[in-house]
Amino acid sequence: MTGLSFKGYRDPALSRLKELGISVWADVVLKTTHGTFEGIVLPRSETEDEFHIVLKLKSGYNVGVRADSVTEARQVGHKEAIYKIPESEFPTDPSRPDVSLFGTGGTIASRLDYRTGAVIPAFTPGELYGAVPELADICNLKTEKLFGVFSENMGPEQYVVTAKAVAAEIEKGVKGIVIGHGTDTLHHTASILSFMLQDLPVPVVLVGSQRSSDRPSSDAALNLRNAVKTAAECDIAEVMVCMFGPTSDQYALLHRGTRVRKMHSSYRSTFRTIGDIPLAMVSQENGFHHLRDDYNRRRDDTRLKLNTAFEEKVSIVYYYPNMKPDIIEALVDNGYKGIVIAGTGLGHVNKPLYPALAKCRDAGVAVYMTVQTLWGYVHMRVYETGRDMIKLGVVEAENMLPEVAYMKLCWVLGQTTEPGEVRELMLNPIAGEITDREPPNGYLVYQGGVPEVEEFISRTLR
Amino acid sequence: MTGLSFKGYRDPALSRLKELGISVWADVVLKTTHGTFEGIVLPRSETEDEFHIVLKLKSGYNVGVRADSVTEARQVGHKEAIYKIPESEFPTDPSRPDVSLFGTGGTIASRLDYRTGAVIPAFTPGELYGAVPELADICNLKTEKLFGVFSENMGPEQYVVTAKAVAAEIEKGVKGIVIGHGTDTLHHTASILSFMLQDLPVPVVLVGSQRSSDRPSSDAALNLRNAVKTAAECDIAEVMVCMFGPTSDQYALLHRGTRVRKMHSSYRSTFRTIGDIPLAMVSQENGFHHLRDDYNRRRDDTRLKLNTAFEEKVSIVYYYPNMKPDIIEALVDNGYKGIVIAGTGLGHVNKPLYPALAKCRDAGVAVYMTVQTLWGYVHMRVYETGRDMIKLGVVEAENMLPEVAYMKLCWVLGQTTEPGEVRELMLNPIAGEITDREPPNGYLVYQGGVPEVEEFISRTLR
Repeated sequence: MTGLSFKGYRDPALSRLKELGISVWADVVLKTTHGTFEGIVLPRSETEDEFHIVLKLKSGYNVGVRADSVTEARQVGHKEAIYKIPESEFPTDPSRPDVSLFGTGGTIASRLDYRTGAVIPAFTPGELYGAVPELADICNLKTEKLFGVFSENMGPEQYVVTAKAVAAEIEKGVKGIVIGHGTDTLHHTASILSFMLQDLPVPVVLVGSQRSSDRPSSDAALNLRNAVKTAAECDIAEVMVCMFGPTSDQYALLHRGTRVRKMHSSYRSTFRTIGDIPLAMVSQENGFHHLRDDYNRRRDDTRLKLNTAFEEKVSIVYYYPNMKPDIIEALVDNGYKGIVIAGTGLGHVNKPLYPALAKCRDAGVAVYMTVQTLWGYVHMRVYETGRDMIKLGVVEAENMLPEVAYMKLCWVLGQTTEPGEVRELMLNPIAGEITDREPPNGYLVYQGGVPEVEEFISRTLR
Repeated sequence: MTGLSFKGYRDPALSRLKELGISVWADVVLKTTHGTFEGIVLPRSETEDEFHIVLKLKSGYNVGVRADSVTEARQVGHKEAIYKIPESEFPTDPSRPDVSLFGTGGTIASRLDYRTGAVIPAFTPGELYGAVPELADICNLKTEKLFGVFSENMGPEQYVVTAKAVAAEIEKGVKGIVIGHGTDTLHHTASILSFMLQDLPVPVVLVGSQRSSDRPSSDAALNLRNAVKTAAECDIAEVMVCMFGPTSDQYALLHRGTRVRKMHSSYRSTFRTIGDIPLAMVSQENGFHHLRDDYNRRRDDTRLKLNTAFEEKVSIVYYYPNMKPDIIEALVDNGYKGIVIAGTGLGHVNKPLYPALAKCRDAGVAVYMTVQTLWGYVHMRVYETGRDMIKLGVVEAENMLPEVAYMKLCWVLGQTTEPGEVRELMLNPIAGEITDREPPNGYLVYQGGVPEVEEFISRTLR
């Protein structure tokens, strides 16, 4: 890297750097309202704030100096760091299981360069070995970057590529699959893969991180280790999400791909099983602690069912009071073939929408009702208004989560538009997306099962 | 009531009654595949199932007989029950506070007629006294039915009528207000009333029930008693929701009107404070247990601010992967003035929507971002994609819940459409709808504070 660089800086810090006439890799003396600092200006990462200039001090420590507190800067040199992850080869051991890791975008893991404080994304087996050497104790790792998109930009194109790549690897005989994924829509991808990839012989584990690996509180390496361990060793051959446990970093939870949802925009324990309990807990030290036994078992063969059907003209309508029929009417006019409503209570919308629902029925648009309470079942037969909607062709989607019903309807309408067949496919659970009952400990937070959870709970109550 | 009645029966039980030639109030002998039953056919309520015929046996007990198990029916008489709630006058005591209760639809409480098993809705003070006599120990009660709509049909017309009625009663000097409301959109009404009714001198308490009063597990009377006690005695002068506590029927929780959401379609403990902790617990025996002290205190005067502004052309767009721009474009074309997006993660939507967001900006449509994780804050400055959206005029709505941001945007756009003023009003918290931080026990479930909660938690962990 040559010339002036301001890598990672944004306003107001960026403007202040320019005013002061300094840039990344400059060795500077900064006078500030809080004292004088000498060090090298470091590049910043995308996720950091826009107010600080970060210096690598002589001591080796990094310090963030508020840009608006700097009164004077004097450059004494330039010390550009050139860094590279050591290309150690990922050790192969024929006694360990083969695991394939697919990248879809975002950082799977990274390595902190302690000299410069910069973060180096790691992806190849050699780089991952450098960043998280414990992986080599678990498996023989192969990695492949499928594409690089932000999680919110994932869509059917990526789902189909991913499902096919997973199927091909499994047919080649790997013992498990890990998919690195941004957390925003990780649960959406988990649910569509649960429908596209059926009767799996090995685990397919989606994993992400809520805090990037350059932060001390990062969950990236831990989640990755737990996901790789699950892919290599776990006997649950389903599409799962492996993420940070709710109460401690001593374990991760394995969530069924169709019952999991992101529930906090920033916490590490963001993924939660909704209306059910997770499949298992996993930790490096204690292995797997199963929380239930109704799961698809690992097999020795390499067969699976792959069905990548997907109809794009499907929408979620999230009901709110005073909603007007124009929104649903516009969907019909624009050729939508399926609508998942997230209704209030047991699955209700207001009366002014009924003519729009009749229009859906007449146009052959499949309309499925879910609940925006997220927990609990749709039950439209309790009140007369609900029964009116059933007459208008609205189908109760039981306890499918709205986003799961959306993904399933896309998948089903990709195969048939005959209403009876759509209904048959929609209401017949394939991967736990509909369950007979909600366990009492399936509401709001799953707790219990292992000593550390009990301990945490009793501690938080003091 | 004369002639044939099938009150409350639906198919298949309804058809079976007709086939058998019997109706409500018939004294019958029913032969079934499980034995013979003699009794009076009782009317059923709207919320009961459609498969059973209910008989009042000679013993006084009611029994439900599956309609399809009846092989033969013989009518031996007709014993129509004429019932009426005893018109006992609600006792008035000048030493007790005056409370006004408004009905908006649905059943506030009811009285079970033990002779017939029928449910009699109670609403006048005299009837409520008959149904829940303990109310007379708390206050002098006045009731007024404002209208009768299902909760999902509530809208601005009802909000304005309710807000004005509440304001008028408070100005007359009552010590507290209770509003009976269906649970589906109770939290929506609580949030709009939090904006329409400001600087309250007394509590305004919304209450409902998840199980109708003819069921043994009903929460109706308990919730009503706790709500009336809160209106009469509590020192928190805010719009609140008073509903069944999460872990035991020994107490109810008081939720701030802008931070509460229905989270289970059927459980009694459905209302939860999100991203924060509730205001207080209330029980008849122990009174109020405050969980925080940052609330608006009860005053002796009768002044308040009433502002019933409401713009109807506002929508919630709930993002899902592969969303197409046509949905937002249709809103702009249909003259919508405000859109609340529930985005993924920290507040994201996919890139194909950016042109539609530009169209919103150019048309002067106010677009506010919330998170569909429900917990946590919007933070669009972390990734470049979020910063792009900020440039497109999308405003971060902090930690406002999507439905609260919707109600507030309706209220704000009813007052001004000037973008700077809208932003100023939207981002300036009026009633706790935006908070500086989320307490650690504000995520997923609020627990703790009283011995019975701790006890319950430890019990569930065994």
